[in-house]
Amino acid sequence: MKFLVKDMDIATGGVKVALLNEKDANKLDLHHNDRIIVRKGKKQTTAILDIAESSKAVPPGKIGLFEEVLDATSAVQNDTVEITTAKKPASVSYIKKKLDGKALNYEETYAIIKDIVEDNLTSIELTTYIDANYIRGMTLKEIIDSTKAMVATGSKIEIKKKTVVDVHGIGGVPGNRTTPIIVAILVAAGLTVPKTSSRAITSPSGTADTMDIFCNVAISIPKLKKILDRVGGFMVWGGAEQINLAPADDKIIRIEHPLEIDAEGQMLASIMAKKASVGATHLLLEMSVGKNAKLKTHKEAKLLGKKFRVLGNELGIKVAFFTADGSQPIGNGIGPALEARDLLQVLTKDPNAPKDLREKSIKMAAMLLEFTSRVHVGKGKKFAARMIENGAAYNAFLRIIRAQGGKELTQDEIPIGKFTHSFKSKKTGRIVEIDNKITTKICRVAGAPSDHGAGIYFYKKKGALVKAGEKLFTVYSQNEEELGYAIECAKQFRLMRIE
Amino acid sequence: MKFLVKDMDIATGGVKVALLNEKDANKLDLHHNDRIIVRKGKKQTTAILDIAESSKAVPPGKIGLFEEVLDATSAVQNDTVEITTAKKPASVSYIKKKLDGKALNYEETYAIIKDIVEDNLTSIELTTYIDANYIRGMTLKEIIDSTKAMVATGSKIEIKKKTVVDVHGIGGVPGNRTTPIIVAILVAAGLTVPKTSSRAITSPSGTADTMDIFCNVAISIPKLKKILDRVGGFMVWGGAEQINLAPADDKIIRIEHPLEIDAEGQMLASIMAKKASVGATHLLLEMSVGKNAKLKTHKEAKLLGKKFRVLGNELGIKVAFFTADGSQPIGNGIGPALEARDLLQVLTKDPNAPKDLREKSIKMAAMLLEFTSRVHVGKGKKFAARMIENGAAYNAFLRIIRAQGGKELTQDEIPIGKFTHSFKSKKTGRIVEIDNKITTKICRVAGAPSDHGAGIYFYKKKGALVKAGEKLFTVYSQNEEELGYAIECAKQFRLMRIE
Repeated sequence: MKFLVKDMDIATGGVKVALLNEKDANKLDLHHNDRIIVRKGKKQTTAILDIAESSKAVPPGKIGLFEEVLDATSAVQNDTVEITTAKKPASVSYIKKKLDGKALNYEETYAIIKDIVEDNLTSIELTTYIDANYIRGMTLKEIIDSTKAMVATGSKIEIKKKTVVDVHGIGGVPGNRTTPIIVAILVAAGLTVPKTSSRAITSPSGTADTMDIFCNVAISIPKLKKILDRVGGFMVWGGAEQINLAPADDKIIRIEHPLEIDAEGQMLASIMAKKASVGATHLLLEMSVGKNAKLKTHKEAKLLGKKFRVLGNELGIKVAFFTADGSQPIGNGIGPALEARDLLQVLTKDPNAPKDLREKSIKMAAMLLEFTSRVHVGKGKKFAARMIENGAAYNAFLRIIRAQGGKELTQDEIPIGKFTHSFKSKKTGRIVEIDNKITTKICRVAGAPSDHGAGIYFYKKKGALVKAGEKLFTVYSQNEEELGYAIECAKQFRLMRIE
Repeated sequence: MKFLVKDMDIATGGVKVALLNEKDANKLDLHHNDRIIVRKGKKQTTAILDIAESSKAVPPGKIGLFEEVLDATSAVQNDTVEITTAKKPASVSYIKKKLDGKALNYEETYAIIKDIVEDNLTSIELTTYIDANYIRGMTLKEIIDSTKAMVATGSKIEIKKKTVVDVHGIGGVPGNRTTPIIVAILVAAGLTVPKTSSRAITSPSGTADTMDIFCNVAISIPKLKKILDRVGGFMVWGGAEQINLAPADDKIIRIEHPLEIDAEGQMLASIMAKKASVGATHLLLEMSVGKNAKLKTHKEAKLLGKKFRVLGNELGIKVAFFTADGSQPIGNGIGPALEARDLLQVLTKDPNAPKDLREKSIKMAAMLLEFTSRVHVGKGKKFAARMIENGAAYNAFLRIIRAQGGKELTQDEIPIGKFTHSFKSKKTGRIVEIDNKITTKICRVAGAPSDHGAGIYFYKKKGALVKAGEKLFTVYSQNEEELGYAIECAKQFRLMRIE
């Protein structure tokens, strides 16, 4: 059947949508979420059908097309297009199979992941895949298959090196910006570190958000390979269009996030797919354990660690673990710019550098140095500390940011929120708790991560003695109103407990 | 934050959608599917956020509003509206609870069903509720709660009668239009029968589609009560806007249908909620059993029947069962108009009336007559047959359709598809099978149910002897092209098996 095109002037940024008037849909026995083939001349695409109940949106005889469909068919306003019914992709029957509790094989998983990446699934189908994996659980075989399918449907950075190092943190702890320091140390030590990181979804900053302060984090893969050859490492945003590692992950997270679920199998596959896509041979997995971290107990961390190791074996990635105290934020500054200042202090040996951040970064770098046999077992910490002391790590950091189009900055050149409010202690005592979740909440309300200068600076951390009237922390924001909300939030919830 | 309104000129017919440019969304830390409050003056509503990646769809500083949001806020193009973040409704946490395998209580189920009816859930959340119920299963208590919540969130037809009769078929068998005949017999026998039916979703016709041929099926509840007082019964479409019984069901089916799932607990609740909404006291449940029917074995039917009885007990509805042969279509005509002709033949004692349809309708009416103690046990069949023979049932049918704005029609006055094609037997033998699914497929391809005149007429049914060259069935359509597709379909698949 033929229809006149109405340009709806909407992009979904994903699924291709076409709108028919209810009367036409009834005539063709088409329903909401059915698939149709839209054809103009030799160009055609499959679209998901939405039904317009009013003639105002789409009158009978017309078809409303979203940008993605217009692009795929080169159709414009008032063109004539031909509509036929399309079959559901086979992946929908595999999703149904998983829903019914049957395990999927590689071909089935690959078909699903491919259709996720190509936006061929409706939100109902994608949600059902995620729900089914969440409730039914994924077998080890399914997790391996899913990882491989995510790698196969994304870009890869092919690196011809015997040893390729990566590091990953299982989050929930604000601050904790160890990655740039570790990468700098390892690159200074001559290791190859193709580091891709994510942006913050629910946290005050991701490594990619903090690296934004220093340089470009969205760089094409051919350029990244050149940087790697020249400098030995890079630090970029893996989700950038130019990079696009394991893109299924982002689409899955778009469903998981509003439901606040984080299915273990899915998480394992997503993380390891990104490591496999850069050809990592050695991965250090940091697991922060604490009441307000993602992992509550060491037992939980150990169990999860085992699964990472098994999956790593399948992918040819050796996995080591670093279990860390996740009971409070790491570093003094929280938020993209304040974390950037912190890590610069560590690398430039500033006397005010946060000790916890420095210590943790050195320990983790040391583990990787020993794990890759770059230094002898037992010598890692001393070696890593020396890389900072002799300026080699900072030089490596500068080489990386220059290669990524940045330039050297002093800490004072990093802009932070111009509106500030400091909180003072009401009593004398010892800080016994700093709440991760409330830290995150205040920073985000103040504008982090999109406002890079927003966040919190802590003058004292857990265990410190404070006097009544002494400054505890300062909240920063670029926006006076948002600072106001953040202050309200800090007053309403107890960020610090002093006894 | 304030935004200028862009009228998107789209109605979803459900969820309220607002579109912000990606830049504004980032500034406000808002994500796809987040909820926002849109306020203009004193009017406000909650909307689900979509993100526009291009300025063409929605530029920074503007907010694109769909019809439902414009209506709720009385905002128009270029008005200024105020946006604040809205909390997720509590029902989302209950859905999460069910996803995690915990049973829900009445308050939680009610909150979910209410938010479904009021379009407060995103497609991700609603899908997850359905997936969770499907995989986790529903306890009897949850099914009861869900039924009660569906009744409480829809319209009710309050009837002050001691005995209120209803009948329901668990489908999968094409044709099978017994309901209008049964209702006519029962109303002729003086019983109260407030019959609401559905339209076809996947079948060639629903009772509401066939009744369309005779009269109006979308009538307001006050009018229906008057009809009931005067005539004793009606036959309408329960999903009509004016009636709106248990409206949660339709919204749930919109998700289940594309996934091709039919969760048992959900189905029990949906059916019984509609019966409870009309105050039924006696329900006859027809269960067709057969290879291509929904229920494959008598054991399955018995198990399901038990669940209906238990649920009926809780709602004060007595449930009786009629297990029927579901191995082939019932009646000769399949499709809205052809079924209308069939039932008219039965009621007007036409010698060509399909015997299977007449027999089945009499048996089912008999069960209800005995079940409600209208006649003594063992006397039902004779009584029901007499109601047809003496014209009382047909008179009752005429009273009902006249009350619903229709007029008497002869069979020939019922228009059927003007394009036809007859299939003849290639060999002499006995018909051993007529496939339900293929019957349905051919009828729908020919245009049923939206093309009321489309469908199949069978000259012979299972068990009959046929000679080579003898007519087996005719396919009808209003549209020559669609008839062509239906013929193709009939040639490709084996509708009848002759041995």
